[in-house]
Amino acid sequence: MTSKPTIVRTVAELRKRIASFRRSRPIEEAAVGFVPTMGYLHEGHASLLRRSVQDNGLTVLSIFVNPIQFGPNEDLDKYPRDEEKDVALAASCGVDLVFLPTVQEMYPQRRVTTVMVSEVTDGLCGASRPGHFDGVATVVAKLLNIVQPDRAYFGLKDAQQVAVVTRMAQDLNIPTEIVSCPTVREEDGLALSSRNVYLNAEEREQALSLSRSLSRVAEWIGEGVDAPELSELLKREIRRSPLAKVEYAEALTYPDLLPPEPGTPLRSIDGSVLVALAVRFGTTRLIDNRLLNPKEVGVHACFAK
Amino acid sequence: MTSKPTIVRTVAELRKRIASFRRSRPIEEAAVGFVPTMGYLHEGHASLLRRSVQDNGLTVLSIFVNPIQFGPNEDLDKYPRDEEKDVALAASCGVDLVFLPTVQEMYPQRRVTTVMVSEVTDGLCGASRPGHFDGVATVVAKLLNIVQPDRAYFGLKDAQQVAVVTRMAQDLNIPTEIVSCPTVREEDGLALSSRNVYLNAEEREQALSLSRSLSRVAEWIGEGVDAPELSELLKREIRRSPLAKVEYAEALTYPDLLPPEPGTPLRSIDGSVLVALAVRFGTTRLIDNRLLNPKEVGVHACFAK
Repeated sequence: MTSKPTIVRTVAELRKRIASFRRSRPIEEAAVGFVPTMGYLHEGHASLLRRSVQDNGLTVLSIFVNPIQFGPNEDLDKYPRDEEKDVALAASCGVDLVFLPTVQEMYPQRRVTTVMVSEVTDGLCGASRPGHFDGVATVVAKLLNIVQPDRAYFGLKDAQQVAVVTRMAQDLNIPTEIVSCPTVREEDGLALSSRNVYLNAEEREQALSLSRSLSRVAEWIGEGVDAPELSELLKREIRRSPLAKVEYAEALTYPDLLPPEPGTPLRSIDGSVLVALAVRFGTTRLIDNRLLNPKEVGVHACFAK
Repeated sequence: MTSKPTIVRTVAELRKRIASFRRSRPIEEAAVGFVPTMGYLHEGHASLLRRSVQDNGLTVLSIFVNPIQFGPNEDLDKYPRDEEKDVALAASCGVDLVFLPTVQEMYPQRRVTTVMVSEVTDGLCGASRPGHFDGVATVVAKLLNIVQPDRAYFGLKDAQQVAVVTRMAQDLNIPTEIVSCPTVREEDGLALSSRNVYLNAEEREQALSLSRSLSRVAEWIGEGVDAPELSELLKREIRRSPLAKVEYAEALTYPDLLPPEPGTPLRSIDGSVLVALAVRFGTTRLIDNRLLNPKEVGVHACFAK
């Protein structure tokens, strides 16, 4: 149905191919879409790729396990990889170019430049993974400068990452539209993640506590809880699964990621609220979230009662 | 001889005009050159503008006194400005577009993103002006993303700035060639600077101690001094001017800006050495430098004796 994507391993060749695409088309058909990933692709990535193929004349997928966004005790070395399967999935989605650089190609000399994003990185994964978002912001800035896409696609499963990349692109005048796409889930509710392969059968079962607790958020917000109360309710629900170790369970305004005033019922907040979880099962760390508008949720919850 | 440049005050309009230029030309004539400045232009800026006009089909000059590169006790408020004279000079050099954004246009929302460059910012102005190069790297990254030039031109009078911008562009894969151009001087040797207008007659006279001391560097290196000895000789020479307060007088490898091993004669160093000065006269801070290849200097100094 679609032809195989071209695999490109150097920055110079990628730039040459993108430039030649842009020159070959009238401007209204020359849009470039970009999906940066760490590979081991799943249906969540596929949804981003399909969206990009639909929106743009050329779609570039990058697969790069970026060492500088992993902490010293994290899973860089064992991060799962399967280049062949990834390229097959890319082909089935209609991707044109797959950029597969080496670490040496991305960091050819001692790196002295870091793109730092403050405030939106203070909480959630920013607090529990120091330096993580510096590594994300730096590599995304690099990739956006390499590809210079019209649009770049990110999954809302990593909602804080979307907030970080969006703010970075705005603050640095990067001329790329950051498009965020909904989380894709297994039929039973588990958010898709390359890290799900680490889970054994029992952990996989108990990992449903994340999506199950999140499915009750609208109800709890409708009942008038504030942010600390919601956090407690989420933790209590998750801890019913004995293997779950909660790292955080928080409600923050979105996209600024500021903590709402304690004592203020969440249902009275204007705009969006992100309810985000990070939970460990053994050495595997899973995240999940719900992004909602409490005012609409409140009404909905009242009607539902 | 040349037509007046177009004055542009918004990012959106600047991008539109540059895109329309690029579309109007075959690729080999569509190069864009960029000279970022803080205005109050002098012959040093003019040399960058003329070089850009010579090398490119379109030249963009930006004039923006960037608040985030000034420290709390620095001269942001009194930094000299003369838009009319600047535009006239730009016209005489053949500049096509002058980008004159407001602070609000460049920083429309609370900025949370900073581009930080380490190591090459440890010494010299980086040490005495904390945060200065974060502000420079951040605004230059923004301007390069706005203009997306093929080449950007910087004066070697700010040699550390050239080193910072060059490393940042490499590390972040910014697809712009950073071109450095020689320092332009008054007939008596004073390096041109917008800050020279702050000097009174006596200070102006004594400010010659910078270029005078630098003019002896080749001779001293030929005699076999190491970096600390050269520093002492420079300071002694400058202090013959009683109004001069030396902030630093240092020799570093270039472009890495690392201190050479004490005890090693500078004339034995391979590659380039930057000899850099910062000297205060009253509240005015002046910088100057010489960039040289000691091996060549050594030979030259021996012949000259």
